[in-house]
Parts: sequence; C-alpha cells; structure tokens
Amino acid sequence: MALTFPAVTTRSSLGIGLAGFGTVGSGVWNALERNGDLITGRTGGDVCLHVSRILVRDPAKARATTSEVPGEMFTTDWKALVADPKVDVVVELIGGTTDAFDIVAAALRAGKPVVTGNKALLAERGVELFQISRETDTPIHFEAAVAGGIPIIRTVQDSFIGNRIHSFSGIINGTSNYILGRMTDAGLSFEDALGEAQSLGYAEADPTLDVNGWDAAHKAILLATLAYGFAIDPSLIHVSGIEQVKPADIQFAKRLGYVVKLLAVIREHEDGTVELRVQPSFVANTNILASVHGVFNAVAVNGDTAGESLFYGRGAGQDPTASSVVADLVEAARSLRRSGSHRGFLPYSDSGRILPVGETSTAYYVRFDVTDRPGVIAEIAKILADHRIGISGTHSPVNPSDPDADFVDMVFLLHTCPFGKLQAALEEVSALDCINSEPVVFRIESLG
Amino acid sequence: MALTFPAVTTRSSLGIGLAGFGTVGSGVWNALERNGDLITGRTGGDVCLHVSRILVRDPAKARATTSEVPGEMFTTDWKALVADPKVDVVVELIGGTTDAFDIVAAALRAGKPVVTGNKALLAERGVELFQISRETDTPIHFEAAVAGGIPIIRTVQDSFIGNRIHSFSGIINGTSNYILGRMTDAGLSFEDALGEAQSLGYAEADPTLDVNGWDAAHKAILLATLAYGFAIDPSLIHVSGIEQVKPADIQFAKRLGYVVKLLAVIREHEDGTVELRVQPSFVANTNILASVHGVFNAVAVNGDTAGESLFYGRGAGQDPTASSVVADLVEAARSLRRSGSHRGFLPYSDSGRILPVGETSTAYYVRFDVTDRPGVIAEIAKILADHRIGISGTHSPVNPSDPDADFVDMVFLLHTCPFGKLQAALEEVSALDCINSEPVVFRIESLG
Repeated sequence: MALTFPAVTTRSSLGIGLAGFGTVGSGVWNALERNGDLITGRTGGDVCLHVSRILVRDPAKARATTSEVPGEMFTTDWKALVADPKVDVVVELIGGTTDAFDIVAAALRAGKPVVTGNKALLAERGVELFQISRETDTPIHFEAAVAGGIPIIRTVQDSFIGNRIHSFSGIINGTSNYILGRMTDAGLSFEDALGEAQSLGYAEADPTLDVNGWDAAHKAILLATLAYGFAIDPSLIHVSGIEQVKPADIQFAKRLGYVVKLLAVIREHEDGTVELRVQPSFVANTNILASVHGVFNAVAVNGDTAGESLFYGRGAGQDPTASSVVADLVEAARSLRRSGSHRGFLPYSDSGRILPVGETSTAYYVRFDVTDRPGVIAEIAKILADHRIGISGTHSPVNPSDPDADFVDMVFLLHTCPFGKLQAALEEVSALDCINSEPVVFRIESLG
Repeated sequence: MALTFPAVTTRSSLGIGLAGFGTVGSGVWNALERNGDLITGRTGGDVCLHVSRILVRDPAKARATTSEVPGEMFTTDWKALVADPKVDVVVELIGGTTDAFDIVAAALRAGKPVVTGNKALLAERGVELFQISRETDTPIHFEAAVAGGIPIIRTVQDSFIGNRIHSFSGIINGTSNYILGRMTDAGLSFEDALGEAQSLGYAEADPTLDVNGWDAAHKAILLATLAYGFAIDPSLIHVSGIEQVKPADIQFAKRLGYVVKLLAVIREHEDGTVELRVQPSFVANTNILASVHGVFNAVAVNGDTAGESLFYGRGAGQDPTASSVVADLVEAARSLRRSGSHRGFLPYSDSGRILPVGETSTAYYVRFDVTDRPGVIAEIAKILADHRIGISGTHSPVNPSDPDADFVDMVFLLHTCPFGKLQAALEEVSALDCINSEPVVFRIESLG
C-alpha cells in the first residue's frame, strides 16, 4: 500500500532560552544539533526546537559544543532571557534554590513553560513553584530531575496514572552507587573510593549532597509527590548517607548474601501514610537491584495494576540528562498549543501524611565500636531483650586478625521491629561504658 | 505555605466503548472501578473515565468483574457500539485482524480515538490503519500491544523522542520465557513445559503465535516502526520460535555460561538499514536479560543520547495490560480536546530498509542430528572451511550416556559470520548422507 504524506501545514517553532550552559546545557545544544531534524520528523513536522538565548556568567568562556554557538545568543541578564520574545520556553540548568527559583517563577509568570533538572529546587521549594504554575496555568516539566535519562517521571505521571503505587525502591544516586561498588569490588575505603569517583568526574568537588543521601532524598520526594499527590516537608524525611559505611560492613554483608546499596524506599501503608526514607541498606544478592552497578540508576515500582516493574539506565551525565530535557521540550512545545489541557498540577491532594521514621519497620544490622571486656555481649543482649527486640545473629570481632585487640567492631543482626523501638534500645546501649561511639545502623530490606 | 485549590471548572467525562470483554476488558473495568477517582484527582479533576457500552458475543454470560455490569451496557452489534453518541473512545480488545480491523477503521472514521492492545492487527495491517488515522486526524494508542504493563511504547515515542535508537534487545513473549525457564530450571522437555504453562494459564489453548515467535515479532515490528518511522513488511522479518529447542541445547548453553532466551533484536546499522529478527538465542549469564525469569518481559534500549536503558515488568495478564489501556485512555481524553496537537502519526518516514537476514552477523551454535560414522566431523568441518567460517568449538556426542549410539547430536560453535554464508554452508552440509534432519541454529548474541 502506497503512503501519502500530506504537506506539513502547521509547524510550531519553539524558541528555547537556556538558563545555564554547563555540562547539561551543552548536552542539550548538541542533542538538538544532532537529532533536531529527527525530532521534527517524528512529530510529523509539528515541532521544531531551536535555542534562542543562553544565560551564562562569562560569554567569553570557551564552550565544548559540537558546533559553534553564535556569540549574540549569550546574555548575562536572566531577566533579558525570560523577557526575550524569541524565548517560548525556559530551561533552568543553573542549579541552587535562590536564583533558580527567581528564574523559574518569572518564566511561569510570563506564561513560559519551564523545563528543569533541579531536584533540590523542586524538593525544597516546589510547593511554591507548583502553586505559581497552577495560578498561571503554565507547566513545569522535570523529567531530568530524577534518574537522568530514565523516564521515571513520565512513567509515574502518565503511564502509571491508573495505578495506586504500593512502593518504590530506588538506587537514584550514581555517585554513591559507584563508591559503594568500588568499596565492594576493590575493597577500597570510603575516602579512597570517593577520591577515585572525583578523579573520574563521577563525583563533584563538593560531593556533600551525594554522599549524605540528600540528592537521593530530593529525588525521592519528587517521586512520592507524583505518586501520592501531597506536598512533602523535607524535614520529615529520614535520610542518612554512605559516609558511615566501613569496608567491614560490606564484607559482612557479602558473607550473609547481601550487598550494601544507598536505597530510597517509598511505601504506602494501608492507612494511607507514606513511608519515605533514604539510607544505606542491605539488599539480597538475588534482588535485581543488587545487579545495578557503577553509576547506573534503577527504580523498582510496584503498582496495584501494573505489578512489579523496574526502570534502569544512566542516572546522570551530559547526554542522558539532555535526553530527558529534550523530551520535556517537545512536551512543552505541545502544551503551548493547548492551554488548560496539559497534565494535572502538583500537588493534587491536600491530605496525606508521611509515616514517622520511628514507625517504619525492617530488620537491622547494627555495628558497635566496643572496648572488649567480659560481659559486653550479655549487657547489650539484655537491653535488646528488655525492649523485646529479637537477635538473629551476632558477630564479634568482625576482624579477627588481632584476637587481643581492646577495641573491636561487634555486629548484631536484629529481627524486624519499629525503628523507634530500636532507637530507644540503642540509646541505652550507648550509655554503657564499653561503647566508644554512636552505633551504626543499616537496614536489611525485604524488597517486593 | 497553605495551598489553595481552584474549583474544577472543566471536566471531560470520557465515555468508553469496550469492544471485547474478556480478561483484559474486565481488567479495565476493575481498574476504573478501583482507581477512577484517583485518576480524576491526578488530572486535577480534568479527566473522568467511565465505560458506556460493551461489545460482547453473549450478553448473558457470567462476568468475573469486581462490581456488577449493568445489563443494558452490553451490545452484540459493533456498529451500534461505534455509533453510540455516549462512546467517545473505542477500546479494541477482540483480537484477530478482520473484525478488529473493521471496528478500528470505523471508529477512526467516526473521529473516535482508538485504544488497542492488538499487536497482530497493527503489525499486519497497521499501515492501512495509520493512514486512516492520519486522514481523520484521530489517534490510535497502543501501549498495551507491547510488553503488557511496561510503558515501552510511550518511552520510545515520547521520552526517547530526542534519541537515535541504536538497538533494542527484548524478551517480549512471556509464554516462551516461562517455557524456556522451566526447561532450564527443571529440565522439562518443550512439550511438558508447554503443557505446564497451559495448565497455569500462561499459554493459551492455541499457543502457536507464542511458541513460533510471531507474537514477539509483531511487537518488535511495532517498536521498530516507532524508532525508525518506516512501514515494515512482516514478510521481510526473520522469525524462528522455541519449538526446536531441546533440553540438550539448554544444558550445553549452561555449560558455556549462557541461557537460552527467545530474543527480539532490532539494530540500526551505519548505512541506515535496520536489522530485525526474533529467534532463540544464547545470552551470557552476566547480561541483565539473563535474569528475566518466568513470564516477565524486559526490553533493553540503547539510544544515542540516553545511553543503555532497561525496562522490566509484567508483559501480559489482566491487570498489567489494563494498566496500559487506562494510561492510553487518559491520553485519548486529552487528545480529544486538542485536535492536531497529539503525537505525530505513523509511519513518519517513507524511506528505510530492513537488512536482509542473510546480511545479519552473530556467532552461532549449530546442532546436527548425524548418523555416527568415521569422517563425519571432518566432512562438516571441511564444508565450513570452504565457506571460510571459523569453528570455535565442537562437541559430540552431546549425550555421552550411550557411546555406541548410531544417531547422535553433534554441536558446532561458530565464529561470527553473516547468516547468509552460514545458510549456504549448511545447505551443503545437509546434503551429506550422514545428516538426518535440518540443522538447528541458535545465535550467540553479543549484547551491548
């Protein structure tokens, strides 16, 4: 059968204002250079994307793009970028939560859709921005904010719109996953693995938000907001990072059939409360998340209709993040022609409650730094028994190379109990004179 | 910050005509019963889905839905369903390529968007239907046609719109994957594993399209059409199924560090030709696709911008397929309000060529059924050498339990060469008097 292609009658040429032209901004430029015609073809000639204006700090700086950027595109004045009539949509890529907030808010107030990859901005100040978005009937697209090139935002927002989401379990910080992987495979210390990640460009000069868990927490807040619809106060989230992981923990996990992963866990309970936490966790070797290596990300989603699903891919980097920005730009181009008919706004629910971390239950691995003397195990065990916390195993010392060492690591594996109960018990244990520092707790996850 | 929710001013109540009310149709009914309010809430009150009319063969038949279906909803006349003014969108779930074609064509001509999970219809007659869709400016949505609850259609069409797709490698037929898994784990024969799959409801009474590879091929054709935009003639696709897999092959694969999977491989070559084939393949144990067990599906996608990604989930069944139908219904509801601004139509390219299977190259596993006599290996090896095909290993007999058997399986492992070259060599080998039946060939895949 011969195909006839009607002449293209409508073409919406979308002028893009790029606020920020670092790694991701250059990636967007390159992707549009490389695949712009392909994108236009795929939309039936409907959407033609081009960059109109670029906000930078220093217009004279050399750029590593695949084609030269005309000098007149650059501006150092964000207000000029937002106000430029050739700019139809603003892509915010400068990071941070102050200037970025002003740019996004101004663009929305000018009726210009925003595309952003700024998870900190949306997790910390999203409620304000979503409200402006609603008032101005102008959408914010943020696929690039969670898991780089993995289309998890669109999946939750569109593909799983008919699903009540039971849970997410995600490896959504590639830097942490790389560091933990090197500690596991090469036996590196946390500090050495972090240094290696920095020298390879996998960790930034200031890796604080990666290693303390907050980068993952910001992403988890966005996923939970999409799934459950209510505004989430970041101060209610329990977050701990990977700085406290020692090679001994990883070796111990390995012996038990686990790997240590920085995991974001989101789970809706039967009463509608939502558990949301980020921490280093023991994941069974047999779980597919244990196979997520290096800087890759993965999000397991369990929906009541779709069942168990997993989305895996590159969670960061120039091109993967640009892939998500470009997809959002096409969506923005379409939304400009259909005011009022784009996706619903966030939040879409004014009820909803985060489950206090004290009420979240898993099994645990607890490492104590103790001064070895007779009676230590008995004393710790008695306190746990008083709190009705079951012990499934103990191990001491973790490194038996020096049997007469005074200071040893002692590990307790504990049955499932509420975290609050464990905290109360550990407070008492910490008061024992043989305990030298704060006990280190990892959760042993039992994943769908 | 307090949130204010504006009153809902627009609400598009979408009347659904369900053509077919079997497993998936009941799943859609149940999902809307269970999560209809949630869906409406998530769209900001914008979209309210309800079933208006249901096409069935026998209105009196008992239905296994979670709530009772009012008898007056049923009709046995598809024209009445399509023409019903309360029907805004038609969901085609009757299967087949004749009546289903008429229903879809009529719905499009009536300006009613279509949602379908019918991969055979779209792969065999999609070109005609897409043309009608284009002429009537009315979309066809078909997320449910590929990989059940996994949102792979939307991912390729929307999320990866800015990507040139280098390749797909997919396990997209759950029945075959279940059967191969049972042959691997429990040592069952093909026939026994198929019988078990049927008794568990994982295979239909007539499993032809599942085991001969064509169900997977139909899905692969749709993925390739989305990625490369040109109309694909199913007769140009190389498809072989799992009927020819013997426990000996699986054991042999295991010994070499592989598992046997029914794989759909789609790959764009540098000259723009597209390789597309479905066949049982050796997949290395270390590849993530080797971990896809039971009836689960997975599609690995390699895009030039997003990089390597994997999408994993339930590829069939009532609820997962309903999840995709419901997502498409929301999209259809939105598209009704924005004529001309939905996704581009298929095909979007009038060039494009399928690479002839003879030009596709991999390494191979070849099993010969031979009458054992002196000189057999030498004769086969000479023919392969004449065709300049390298041998990386031989194994004979595969089952050494009876060293004096007259008929044995003999396995050759061959280096990478074009399939056409192998075919020519095998034609000569087949003419040898010691060869008792057509040689069985599996590809050894080297996946990204």
